[in-house]
Amino acid sequence: MPKFSKDPLRGMEDFYPEDLREMNWIIDNIRDIAEVYGYEAFESPQLEPIEIFAAKSSDELVNEQSFIVEKKEGERLILIPELTPSLARMIAKKNQELKKPIRWYSVPICFRYERPQRGRRRQFKQINFDILGEDSLYGDLEIFNIVVDIFTKFGATAKQFQIYYNNRRFIDAVCQMILKVQQNKLALIYKALDKAEKMDENEYEDYISELFQDNSIIQGILRLKKSDSIEDLLKNFDNIPDNFYNSEGYKELKEFERLLEEANLSEFCTFSSGVVRGLDYYTGIVYEVYDTGTENTRSIFGGGRYDDLLSLFSDEQISGTGFGLGLVMFSLFLETYKLIPQEIRERDYSDTIYIAGIKENVSAYTLQLAQKIRAEDFPCIIDYRFSNLKNQLSKANELGNIITLIIGPNEMKEKKVTIRNMISEEQITVDKEHIIDEIYKIIDEYGN
Amino acid sequence: MPKFSKDPLRGMEDFYPEDLREMNWIIDNIRDIAEVYGYEAFESPQLEPIEIFAAKSSDELVNEQSFIVEKKEGERLILIPELTPSLARMIAKKNQELKKPIRWYSVPICFRYERPQRGRRRQFKQINFDILGEDSLYGDLEIFNIVVDIFTKFGATAKQFQIYYNNRRFIDAVCQMILKVQQNKLALIYKALDKAEKMDENEYEDYISELFQDNSIIQGILRLKKSDSIEDLLKNFDNIPDNFYNSEGYKELKEFERLLEEANLSEFCTFSSGVVRGLDYYTGIVYEVYDTGTENTRSIFGGGRYDDLLSLFSDEQISGTGFGLGLVMFSLFLETYKLIPQEIRERDYSDTIYIAGIKENVSAYTLQLAQKIRAEDFPCIIDYRFSNLKNQLSKANELGNIITLIIGPNEMKEKKVTIRNMISEEQITVDKEHIIDEIYKIIDEYGN
Repeated sequence: MPKFSKDPLRGMEDFYPEDLREMNWIIDNIRDIAEVYGYEAFESPQLEPIEIFAAKSSDELVNEQSFIVEKKEGERLILIPELTPSLARMIAKKNQELKKPIRWYSVPICFRYERPQRGRRRQFKQINFDILGEDSLYGDLEIFNIVVDIFTKFGATAKQFQIYYNNRRFIDAVCQMILKVQQNKLALIYKALDKAEKMDENEYEDYISELFQDNSIIQGILRLKKSDSIEDLLKNFDNIPDNFYNSEGYKELKEFERLLEEANLSEFCTFSSGVVRGLDYYTGIVYEVYDTGTENTRSIFGGGRYDDLLSLFSDEQISGTGFGLGLVMFSLFLETYKLIPQEIRERDYSDTIYIAGIKENVSAYTLQLAQKIRAEDFPCIIDYRFSNLKNQLSKANELGNIITLIIGPNEMKEKKVTIRNMISEEQITVDKEHIIDEIYKIIDEYGN
Repeated sequence: MPKFSKDPLRGMEDFYPEDLREMNWIIDNIRDIAEVYGYEAFESPQLEPIEIFAAKSSDELVNEQSFIVEKKEGERLILIPELTPSLARMIAKKNQELKKPIRWYSVPICFRYERPQRGRRRQFKQINFDILGEDSLYGDLEIFNIVVDIFTKFGATAKQFQIYYNNRRFIDAVCQMILKVQQNKLALIYKALDKAEKMDENEYEDYISELFQDNSIIQGILRLKKSDSIEDLLKNFDNIPDNFYNSEGYKELKEFERLLEEANLSEFCTFSSGVVRGLDYYTGIVYEVYDTGTENTRSIFGGGRYDDLLSLFSDEQISGTGFGLGLVMFSLFLETYKLIPQEIRERDYSDTIYIAGIKENVSAYTLQLAQKIRAEDFPCIIDYRFSNLKNQLSKANELGNIITLIIGPNEMKEKKVTIRNMISEEQITVDKEHIIDEIYKIIDEYGN
């Protein structure tokens, strides 16, 4: 009979126990941060109607990179490529009763039909943080603080990662007030800027030139790509009208920089005029987090503020800001800087109680003992071979546990248990009733 | 603009924080059991090639109840309706290096395109336990022990649930040796028995009559549906050949009953000749767990032993046994018997430190305090309104936290903090350096 492949589908991943221990160690560390910031976990379905992504997300996600489920009852369903539209739907449904600000996080599985490559999977876990109903810049600041805490919790330093931020309202002001670009072309500029990184210089220039006929606009847009301070960017332009400095975009960005300074976050953050994010729904502060080294050149993850996502579902308005951290890229970052301790992958059997029965007629007695031990929350494994003590002890040794119980017909008859300390190799025989006390004694002395 | 629906897709579920707390409380309790039995967690992808289910699972799952992803690169992909084929694939890949017995568990999201109804969702979480490479009945016994521990951990009693078990090898022996059914008709009998519950008496009789022309076979099969002890079942048949009592199926089932007795599990378990399980791959002990009451009449979940699942992927053989517990049905069971404490759904804010700054110019100072407090793993929320202390205190009160910090310009200037005990309504002002000590004092006295 021909055999099927033992591998997962292209771009997908099997998590064997050691792999999952590593991933869950990363997720649990980030969950701890969610908890101390007062964020609550939620979950939404893996499938949504495709329209809610088509309306607000990005054409590329929906048309090129989507996994679509074959029609059922006339609906076209998409395996979610990102979480934000589902979040908006859930908020819209209970907006009236949800207390503001809403601080939520989630660990969704997302899907994108991309060419598998370093840091990209077709199925991947994300961790999403969002704060909604906090319209002030303190909401954005809190999210930046969370991002910094996530990285530093794993031991990363400002030399290893930076949050590159910008503000769409600021770019709007530059484009409209300085470059005199029409408002209806702004979305195209965002798309171009977001793609700039993946294009070479000439390609990008051609793309921009085709969009705009006016050479001064073209040159202006090309300059948007480069600057790493507001002042440097503005030096590029003559004739900045006075009211530009009173624009919401300019003032908000300057105020945000002041807040970053005040919160001691400046060392982790750098302005970047080219950061705008690919998704259509962003409106305010946006950011991408990068590895500052040469190993991982793509953005690790990004996020930003969105003001009218609820409009898909309701007439109510609520502003939110947040990010979706993809675990594949983040793990690569941690690996690059050796921030994942190797022992995380290994299973610790030290407090597992191994029971070796030397004849099958003691099986019932071993089951009773195991029940008693598990009731105390000690992991307990029975070796069901019930013969050849040497083989059983060698199996226990292989696991690296500290305590093995040896049960023979005598132990059973006298309601006793022989306890072998696998480290000192001492054995004592005690009454069955004292077994838990004896286990605690040995684990307290020898355990981790 | 027309609005999209705020509801999840039909048959799918949103988990708001209170819903997720409840579900995770259930899952975490079951995870604890996995841990004390020494089971390790793994994860596999949501998508698999449809062929591995078509080959071994059930026609109904693959043809009628599947979510299929539109073709990509010529492959037809299925959103997994159950986990076992993926488990088999992963084991097949690393069978050589995996130490036996393999004890694994997983919490997959599965999909079935069924008519949504009580206890049935189109997307649902399962908890799967499997032990592989333990060929003896002790493997089955361990799984039964785990099932019983899961139910009793939540407080359920033998009066509320029963594991109805059977053995496919036993039914094989009955059909072949007593009823003289040809081996190639066995699969049809399993299918019929599995469906019997959903058909009425007459429908079932017609179905069986159509399959078999011989009246004695038909009558025999009809009797397979009813008995709740081996002896009662066998009383139905004349002419039982002597070698039937030497058949593997008969001996194994009797031995298993002896083991259940020995392990004190008999009160939770009942033989049922009609239990065979719908999936094609089962070979030995099979079981379905039922609510014994009238509220939930469908099986809560089931499982059984499979001997050659690896054959899809490799020439190696390994026998396994396990179950997939669907959380929707299990939650319904727990709700029916009021085994979910209501407070599980509520969030406990008691140890959350709420910071109320009374002027915006103290914002930087509140951020520093929050950092310090979060570093001690206390949840900390800053009220970013920075005005109107009364409103901020009333918000804190609404949360039900114990400690609120009040920060004004004086506190900031003198590097002090005013701590308000929300229960006693006492306020004291302390040096910033002592804030953590003071928090511990109050939480130790008033916290949960």
